[in-house]
Amino acid sequence: MAHLTVVAKVVAKKESIEALKAELFKLIPPTRKEEGCIEYRLHQDNHDPAIFIFYENWQNKDALDRHMASPHFTAYVKATETLMADKAVNLMTGVE
Amino acid sequence: MAHLTVVAKVVAKKESIEALKAELFKLIPPTRKEEGCIEYRLHQDNHDPAIFIFYENWQNKDALDRHMASPHFTAYVKATETLMADKAVNLMTGVE
Repeated sequence: MAHLTVVAKVVAKKESIEALKAELFKLIPPTRKEEGCIEYRLHQDNHDPAIFIFYENWQNKDALDRHMASPHFTAYVKATETLMADKAVNLMTGVE
Repeated sequence: MAHLTVVAKVVAKKESIEALKAELFKLIPPTRKEEGCIEYRLHQDNHDPAIFIFYENWQNKDALDRHMASPHFTAYVKATETLMADKAVNLMTGVE
């Protein structure tokens, strides 16, 4: 069964880039320890530093749901509400 | 030196999803053989099958430039001109 890929694009308000980056960065260690988390990689755009993309792979939807209910993710959502200008999340399947 | 990550989102016209998917799929084998190509993964959105995302990692910008000048990529660009509704490409760096 193909696992679940998430491509999550997050755009910071111009004045909140470093603050958002710090909150995104905080998510990485606890998320990678979660059961069912296969890959959790953060990237910053080379031309527009306000654009961040998480490339994630999860064993299945249950694992992703547990992640989104976790203390560290809910704290992240709360802490970044006012820092974001835009967001787009794609749940995807690999085409091999 | 961090390598170069490319996140390329391609959206097919509603009537051209399978045609575009076939052209995207054709790119994978020759691209993965290119020097400097570290990862080249294609994904299709689970909710909107018209949305595809390539997640790519390249040793450096030269490797990506060679890819975009390659016969298989230039043939792909020509073959998909009329199949696409939208496209967005982010050149990025991993944040670890």
